[in-house]
Amino acid sequence: MLKKTINVNQVPKTLVVNPEASLADVIRAQLGLTGTKVGCGMAQCGACSVILDGRVVRSCATKMKTVEDGASITTIEGIGAPEDLHPLQVAWMVHGGAQCGFCSPGFIVSAKGLLDQNGSPSREEVRDWFQKHRNACRCAGYKPLVDAVMDAARVLRGEISKEDLAYTIPEDGQIWGGKYPRPSALAKVTGLCDFGADLGLKMPADTLQLALVQAKVSHANILSIDTSEAEKMPGVYKILTHKDVKGKNRITGLITFPTNKGDGWDRPILCDQKIFQFGDAIAIVCADTEANARAAADKVAVNIEELPAYMSAPAAMADDAIEIHPGTPNVYYEQKIAKGEDTKAFMDSAAYVVEDDFYLQRQPHLTMEPDVGFAYFDEEGRLTIHSKSIAIHLHQAMIAPGLGIEPDKLRLVQNPAGGTFGYKFSPTMEALVGVAAMATGHPVFLKYNYAQHITYTGKRSPFFLKLKYGADKSGKITAMESDWIVDHGPYSEFGDLLTVRGAQFIGAGYGIPNIRGLGRTVCTNHAWGSAFRAYGSPQSFLASEVLMDELAEKAGLDPLEIRALNAYRQGDTTPTGQEPDAYSFQEMIDKIRPLYQKAKEKAKAESSAEIKKGVGVSIGIYGCGLDGPDGSQADIELTKEGVTVYTSWEDHGQGADMGTLGTAHQGLRPLGIGPEKIKLLMNDTAITPNSGPSGGSRQQVVTGNAIKAGCEMLVAAMKKPGGGFRSYDEMIAEKIPVRYEGKWAASICSACDENAQGKPFSVYMYGVFMSEVAVDVKTGKVKVEGFTIAADVGTICNRLVVDGQIYGGIAQGIGLALSEDFEDLKKHTTLIGCGIPYAKDIPDNLNILYVETPREHGPFGAAGVGELPLTSPHACVVNAIYNACGVRITKLPALPEKVLAGLNARK
Amino acid sequence: MLKKTINVNQVPKTLVVNPEASLADVIRAQLGLTGTKVGCGMAQCGACSVILDGRVVRSCATKMKTVEDGASITTIEGIGAPEDLHPLQVAWMVHGGAQCGFCSPGFIVSAKGLLDQNGSPSREEVRDWFQKHRNACRCAGYKPLVDAVMDAARVLRGEISKEDLAYTIPEDGQIWGGKYPRPSALAKVTGLCDFGADLGLKMPADTLQLALVQAKVSHANILSIDTSEAEKMPGVYKILTHKDVKGKNRITGLITFPTNKGDGWDRPILCDQKIFQFGDAIAIVCADTEANARAAADKVAVNIEELPAYMSAPAAMADDAIEIHPGTPNVYYEQKIAKGEDTKAFMDSAAYVVEDDFYLQRQPHLTMEPDVGFAYFDEEGRLTIHSKSIAIHLHQAMIAPGLGIEPDKLRLVQNPAGGTFGYKFSPTMEALVGVAAMATGHPVFLKYNYAQHITYTGKRSPFFLKLKYGADKSGKITAMESDWIVDHGPYSEFGDLLTVRGAQFIGAGYGIPNIRGLGRTVCTNHAWGSAFRAYGSPQSFLASEVLMDELAEKAGLDPLEIRALNAYRQGDTTPTGQEPDAYSFQEMIDKIRPLYQKAKEKAKAESSAEIKKGVGVSIGIYGCGLDGPDGSQADIELTKEGVTVYTSWEDHGQGADMGTLGTAHQGLRPLGIGPEKIKLLMNDTAITPNSGPSGGSRQQVVTGNAIKAGCEMLVAAMKKPGGGFRSYDEMIAEKIPVRYEGKWAASICSACDENAQGKPFSVYMYGVFMSEVAVDVKTGKVKVEGFTIAADVGTICNRLVVDGQIYGGIAQGIGLALSEDFEDLKKHTTLIGCGIPYAKDIPDNLNILYVETPREHGPFGAAGVGELPLTSPHACVVNAIYNACGVRITKLPALPEKVLAGLNARK
Repeated sequence: MLKKTINVNQVPKTLVVNPEASLADVIRAQLGLTGTKVGCGMAQCGACSVILDGRVVRSCATKMKTVEDGASITTIEGIGAPEDLHPLQVAWMVHGGAQCGFCSPGFIVSAKGLLDQNGSPSREEVRDWFQKHRNACRCAGYKPLVDAVMDAARVLRGEISKEDLAYTIPEDGQIWGGKYPRPSALAKVTGLCDFGADLGLKMPADTLQLALVQAKVSHANILSIDTSEAEKMPGVYKILTHKDVKGKNRITGLITFPTNKGDGWDRPILCDQKIFQFGDAIAIVCADTEANARAAADKVAVNIEELPAYMSAPAAMADDAIEIHPGTPNVYYEQKIAKGEDTKAFMDSAAYVVEDDFYLQRQPHLTMEPDVGFAYFDEEGRLTIHSKSIAIHLHQAMIAPGLGIEPDKLRLVQNPAGGTFGYKFSPTMEALVGVAAMATGHPVFLKYNYAQHITYTGKRSPFFLKLKYGADKSGKITAMESDWIVDHGPYSEFGDLLTVRGAQFIGAGYGIPNIRGLGRTVCTNHAWGSAFRAYGSPQSFLASEVLMDELAEKAGLDPLEIRALNAYRQGDTTPTGQEPDAYSFQEMIDKIRPLYQKAKEKAKAESSAEIKKGVGVSIGIYGCGLDGPDGSQADIELTKEGVTVYTSWEDHGQGADMGTLGTAHQGLRPLGIGPEKIKLLMNDTAITPNSGPSGGSRQQVVTGNAIKAGCEMLVAAMKKPGGGFRSYDEMIAEKIPVRYEGKWAASICSACDENAQGKPFSVYMYGVFMSEVAVDVKTGKVKVEGFTIAADVGTICNRLVVDGQIYGGIAQGIGLALSEDFEDLKKHTTLIGCGIPYAKDIPDNLNILYVETPREHGPFGAAGVGELPLTSPHACVVNAIYNACGVRITKLPALPEKVLAGLNARK
Repeated sequence: MLKKTINVNQVPKTLVVNPEASLADVIRAQLGLTGTKVGCGMAQCGACSVILDGRVVRSCATKMKTVEDGASITTIEGIGAPEDLHPLQVAWMVHGGAQCGFCSPGFIVSAKGLLDQNGSPSREEVRDWFQKHRNACRCAGYKPLVDAVMDAARVLRGEISKEDLAYTIPEDGQIWGGKYPRPSALAKVTGLCDFGADLGLKMPADTLQLALVQAKVSHANILSIDTSEAEKMPGVYKILTHKDVKGKNRITGLITFPTNKGDGWDRPILCDQKIFQFGDAIAIVCADTEANARAAADKVAVNIEELPAYMSAPAAMADDAIEIHPGTPNVYYEQKIAKGEDTKAFMDSAAYVVEDDFYLQRQPHLTMEPDVGFAYFDEEGRLTIHSKSIAIHLHQAMIAPGLGIEPDKLRLVQNPAGGTFGYKFSPTMEALVGVAAMATGHPVFLKYNYAQHITYTGKRSPFFLKLKYGADKSGKITAMESDWIVDHGPYSEFGDLLTVRGAQFIGAGYGIPNIRGLGRTVCTNHAWGSAFRAYGSPQSFLASEVLMDELAEKAGLDPLEIRALNAYRQGDTTPTGQEPDAYSFQEMIDKIRPLYQKAKEKAKAESSAEIKKGVGVSIGIYGCGLDGPDGSQADIELTKEGVTVYTSWEDHGQGADMGTLGTAHQGLRPLGIGPEKIKLLMNDTAITPNSGPSGGSRQQVVTGNAIKAGCEMLVAAMKKPGGGFRSYDEMIAEKIPVRYEGKWAASICSACDENAQGKPFSVYMYGVFMSEVAVDVKTGKVKVEGFTIAADVGTICNRLVVDGQIYGGIAQGIGLALSEDFEDLKKHTTLIGCGIPYAKDIPDNLNILYVETPREHGPFGAAGVGELPLTSPHACVVNAIYNACGVRITKLPALPEKVLAGLNARK
């Protein structure tokens, strides 16, 4: 141990530390300053940035033995507190810099380090700084963060005051449509928001720390598990295997379709007979410290018989492939699509026919916060599980039978989540911590390191697609034939639903009258498929939007104009035969057109022998809701102090708190109360109603409508016969109920039938994308230099939230296009290995053009937003690459070597 | 477990808590907000005060199940931070409100609660508030805290600014003699100063928590110790008994005098053969949590044969008493005093002879912070022990043989200490944590609860005294005969030295030419005797200062005038035959006299049938230094950034940091550097020189001189031949050393001989005390309504520190006089049970009159200060009681029932 005296936020602190401990761990676990977050734990994300003797360092990679006695450290807590915010913190709030907020303390500390050295940085200098210090953000697309730094610098230079910068409620009192900072922003920018690992450090002293014994192979039979040596390790309380699981030890996907050949009970909590994928949990060590738990986990001996591992759909579909789940074929679900007439005749007679194969990779979510959770028994004896779940009521049902507990004895709570982007639509560790709490009676805590997080949480499922368009002379598509194969990994949960998404979104946006196709869901031994923002549509649009460019070329049309020709007009229907709820594509294309023309001219002018520039477009559409009928509940209660809103609108970081507050405030406008009077109680199955999961951009629409309904009920009840509203005391005196259950269901919807025809969504979002790229001919490296989206997400609840969602979605789309992947179990285990975009990988030239078509079925006209920006931005990037250099990328990501090979092939 | 969402310092925090957990534990151990301190743990000290929904509550007694969901809590961290101090925090700093600083956060939070309700409180309202909220302070005597609240209220009312209130360095740059706030004040008033228990929460994760198995009887033989059942308890790593101690398992008092009949090796680390007092440590449980350790400790079975317990000196001196330490008589040390001629003839011929018996009780230190410590092996393999030790080098030598470790492999570090007042002159848990670290190889942590703290740390040893004065007609004392018996408890460390103090201070202050007497040290089974501020003198002065009043009465003199008559004048010597180093008593008495006259008139005027008022006086004197020759070292180093001062000037809370800084700054004045350029490295045997223990007000004199010497060496070395000073770079370039060992020894001193004659101290402090009391005739309750001291502590280093020491010492003197005791092992186990004074028990009317006689042997003329105010304030209080109502209290404390009995006897 070392005795160190260091100055922490201006006060000398004496500490006893392990010389090998990281500064981050010491700051967090020993000093209790949990504002410094640990994301990747390997100096690739910058969440742990602190200022050490004037330099910004990543504290996770700074060992204590290298920190000199007398060193000075500034953490986020030393930069500003709620009562005394630093201008950077104010700027972060008003620019929506804190979405999930996990990276915010690190960014703000890093920016402080920059401004300490350079009080007047240029935008590019800010971007260079964040790039150099590896400050990664997965939510915000970087641009708002640069905006925030620029404004904070103005305050520090005395050009504007902190008060000028801060948000003020407009005179009319309306916050709907404005830039009210999300309620959680203050805690996030001050480092005071406790994420799961922070809460873990704040658990009672008798909490046991868990470590998993995990599979090191992808497919095997388990012969035996020997825990005897591990049980003798220091600090071990108990080691749990499948024998300690009280229930059926399986997690079910619940909504398994009738034609699914599996029963949905294929995912073990703790492996018993077989290992299905790398990382599968086999045993849980419960110990007094994480280090002791992990050390003991290494001593558990698992005796296996290794089996052939099918690491992609084609491998698992091979004739000689054994069934991964014995008794269920590896191709376990098929989804047809049949719209209009049979396509063969149209193809035969078409003026233009184009056809191509596509592959969209296993995109990793790359949240800043690795997966984390804990469990305990609450005061009513309920097994209570806190996690990053974005589907608390759904998960309650999914894991209860496996645990062997009645659902009403199981309580799920969502912690503040440092990003999920959908991976938490599947339970990850919920059942594991549940098993441990049940077996030990202790509170238990489990956190994954980043490699565990990547390898043992769900991924976007790769699609192998074949697509064919037939078009008439004008370029109008008359028929589409599609075939898509979904590599869903070993666990079936939602795999059938995802396969349906292919039917819904391949070719979506265009009024294609005749469609035939087939999708298949395949069981493999690679990472299980989970939800990911825009679920199923990036795969679909990669095919239909790249093939559209091929058709344009063949038909001699401009890519934007062929889209204008084919995009929804009155009378068109979606691939599932539904009428769109808005026809705004033409208006959006009109908005994009002049920019597109200018961008093309600019690309031409700036292209050289070494750098080829080009412009690409694509369109995107996504539904807001679960498939078919979807409903939600939100409760609104008048209290002595104001109004309390109860929802289970789980937060990925997208702004569930702001959505809830903004919608409720708008619903309560007749009462004229300020937003500070509205209290939010969210995301705890014991106290908040079932609002459904936060997926598919459904919450603003479905739960938004429920909130609106609840508010209307309360406002109506408060209305006095003579005008005006009753006070709380008057309501109580008159015995009028003060709490109302706002409910809403998407009654116009119907699930798709066997031909994938139906009305799956009540509200859709529409967008037109344009990207400007530069291709380095020597290296094949592609840089996105500009990106514009025209978006129709209905009327806007909160501009900061909606802007932020769009910027972030585009950034993920650029990563999807160019760099992100999870394929190689050795290489793809870090943020950099998986290709996360840093500040300089995302253009600062990011533009949003809104077309606000009020939605009939959206509360106050709002649609959702989160999925839209990730529907097809990658398609427009690869279209731009083709435009720049003539290389058609159809299998993502468009890595430099792939582009270079294309360039070489053209020579 | 409960899931609670509470607003902590304005930010909502979700927590999982045990419903029975205290809010304090949750705030500290779970939220990591260690600014909230836990002192007594039973709502008697207010250190844990927080604001809960607008009310000031003691969080240690607030169970989590009673904290409502949604409650708002403000802790010290929410009141102000270093960059943004609250006016209360500034006021606390500039009024010296934070001495040890342990109570400061609780007081500031409490005061915030008051000012939130009442922006213009009167002083009495402030005192009432602190009384009502049980905010206890043991250092500062309350007055400076009331001053601070009054000034903070002025700032909040806008009458002065925070800047007006803050300290500024005078134009000449001198801080010596001024009110520079101590360097640690900022950390203390913001709650960021980490005391031992705070550091314990900040230890590495593999730290083991210790719990002691302690004796429940006061005297017994140990037959066997059975740990088998305890070893099976959850979380237990190891259980240690005497068999696990590698060394001789004894702590030695080191400076055992040659005529001591014991060898000083009488205190076991872990009891082996015998139990010597209640609370003796028998075994140590090492576990993962404190709760597990304590639960397992309860399961250790100790089989004993109980022996008769001698709970006072007379009992242990009885003929039939067995030897507590077999082989050593219970009366193990005797100290004669023989000055001048034999006293018998003088007594026979004296005009007045007075004689009385006295008893001073076992005063408990009642620090706000209970004892705490931890140990680990440092990077060089040294066993490193952190504790509240005020004698790190001394303790190193005292415990090394018992542990079985070479002293150079043992490192002691002092943590910030929440008050010691001397109890930490003895090692308490140092050896226990050392044993555990050695046996387990883990870092280990041990904290006592308050009952353990009281019952198992040393106490002021009771004295049983007989004293006789003979005086001539004028009232001048010609001879004194003394007999004093010291109940030192079972352990001999420093017992002989304490007995010598009787010889040195009974009758001190007066030029008594002829003295005969005998002191005896007695081993008993009550709490072992340790140092306590003014060590040995309150016992001595109780006798000589109360008997002086008896003599005055007999001689028909005024108590003040008989003191003027007898107090040191040129030619007089101390009881040990030494010439005083200042003759300021007459000047101080002259300063007191007009106030005394006025007070007497006031007392007379205000006396009634129910309330009798009176005035008392006493004088006090104490030496600055260890007995006889005493030395210290302080190192001064020029660095690139300024100057670093290395001392082991341990801090009880008295202001060691300020003493070091103030003295060094004065010593470095020729260089003209600001105090912010002087860095202090203190109290770590591995890096700071042996400056000797912090006891007997020696440090300002002895280490102060060493600092001065070191500074002079550095300044001389930096002097350029042509004038001016070399810079650091120039020193290095010229190869002139930059670090200097400042050393000083009290060369004029000599230890006392067998007749107690010698020159034990080079510098003394002198004081004259006056108290004004009111006695409630119906209840016997005494209230001290005013207290004045004239003090000569040489030139003053820092007014805040010296004022603070004096206020605090007087407060402890009032407690000693009226309420404090540790006798009953059942009753005297809490602050209230032991009679700690609260705000209203100490008068707001507290006055200090300084007579600054520069000391020849003090650095820049300074003496010490800490002991002076506790030499005889209690004597002047009981003298005032007699003056008020004619009841002469000679056995302390003067509890109401004792005074009432006296009143009844007079009827």
